[in-house]
Amino acid sequence: MDVHAIDQFAQKTIREAGERIKHSLNETIKVMEKSSSSDLVTNMDMEIEQFFVKEVNEAYPEHRILGEEGFGDSIQHLNGVVWIVDPIDGTTNFINQHRNFCITLGVYVDGMGMLGYIYQVMTGEMIAAVQGQGATINGQPIPKLPPVRFEDALIGVNASWVAPNRHIDHERVTKLIQRVRGTRSYGSAALEISYVVTGRLDAYFSMRLSAWDVAGGMVIAQEVGAICGTLHGKPFDLMKKQPFIIANASLYKELIEDYLVK
Amino acid sequence: MDVHAIDQFAQKTIREAGERIKHSLNETIKVMEKSSSSDLVTNMDMEIEQFFVKEVNEAYPEHRILGEEGFGDSIQHLNGVVWIVDPIDGTTNFINQHRNFCITLGVYVDGMGMLGYIYQVMTGEMIAAVQGQGATINGQPIPKLPPVRFEDALIGVNASWVAPNRHIDHERVTKLIQRVRGTRSYGSAALEISYVVTGRLDAYFSMRLSAWDVAGGMVIAQEVGAICGTLHGKPFDLMKKQPFIIANASLYKELIEDYLVK
Repeated sequence: MDVHAIDQFAQKTIREAGERIKHSLNETIKVMEKSSSSDLVTNMDMEIEQFFVKEVNEAYPEHRILGEEGFGDSIQHLNGVVWIVDPIDGTTNFINQHRNFCITLGVYVDGMGMLGYIYQVMTGEMIAAVQGQGATINGQPIPKLPPVRFEDALIGVNASWVAPNRHIDHERVTKLIQRVRGTRSYGSAALEISYVVTGRLDAYFSMRLSAWDVAGGMVIAQEVGAICGTLHGKPFDLMKKQPFIIANASLYKELIEDYLVK
Repeated sequence: MDVHAIDQFAQKTIREAGERIKHSLNETIKVMEKSSSSDLVTNMDMEIEQFFVKEVNEAYPEHRILGEEGFGDSIQHLNGVVWIVDPIDGTTNFINQHRNFCITLGVYVDGMGMLGYIYQVMTGEMIAAVQGQGATINGQPIPKLPPVRFEDALIGVNASWVAPNRHIDHERVTKLIQRVRGTRSYGSAALEISYVVTGRLDAYFSMRLSAWDVAGGMVIAQEVGAICGTLHGKPFDLMKKQPFIIANASLYKELIEDYLVK
């Protein structure tokens, strides 16, 4: 498998998809509800996913592709080469803000993350990683993350996990946010993961993420020493929608054991 | 009073201050605690405020200047012309993220906002307004904000106001965040105000803001039809640290009456 060729093809395809999304901002975006009024999809999520499916199928007909909007393959296992793509991560930001959304992509071989990308479309920031070869931001190497103290940490956490909810003990989350330097919430899992791998945030967690939200980020994370997993310290299962955390290695264990495991 | 000349001078001074801040990112930033470990100040907050004080004193010796770090005048009233500046709004972001911070400035005449600026240093986005002449973003007019429904709204609110706190009824805030499309938190009042005046957020509130956090934004807000005030619907008193809200006009009344007034 020519990883270098896949890397070049992946970056070219992501950038072209980004240009298509940017152009669409001059036109009317069609917004549809999925599971609820805060779970939205647009014509562009669908068109961009179809673009990825077509490009990957043409270039690598033996590979499979899994996308959020369901235009790729129906995936029950990760044998072989699987591309996992979120054409627009942060759809609400795309609709309401015209910024702060990402294209994110992971390429997995027999379940192992080989290549990962988070591309912030409106700023053009490309974070990329190849397994074992380090991560880059706009072509420049990203250093390994240095240790950080809780008291100096910024954590990505949406306010909804501090309010009573079915997924996590909000009182323990409250204790966490009172201990750290501050919390932030950007409305795109991929964007927040990109902030953790570059040290702009020190951890991020959310309760209901899927493979396409995190597959690219997980490959980048392992190259910079950030730890990804479930709130129970287990590997994130790409076949299930479930809680996800990424954290600076110096925070991870205490974070989940003292604040997040229910 | 030559408002056009003041506008040109203000924008030039803000941009020069921004360049100085950007250069400082190549050097070691000295961080000091103010009231607590999450209330920080750096040598650059102080140097940039001193730069504003010097520039304004030289150009307009008859004007007074109020700054967060206390290098300007000791201000007990707003008679005459008063410049109100926050040299770095979002100091924690400056320290931890090297982005997502603003210079913000308001120029008030006998307590009336005449000119307002929010400059996002790392993106170069300049939002400016002259009272009665509209607001601009990078020189392009910002349209009046169209009405928005709660169900489609994004609200800027930090997780700490959803946790039990001394300032606001967190259970009512919880009801609010469950009604709207989503919440965001960026860690800089000026940045969040800049998001509201451009329609990227539909409201933002925080419990303990001061004149320098909001003086520039309030001038911009009135030009685009956003409403600023206290949680009780009163004008924000620039001489006091107090709760502040900015909201799309279609949300303001219901927002404070149904969710925020204690």
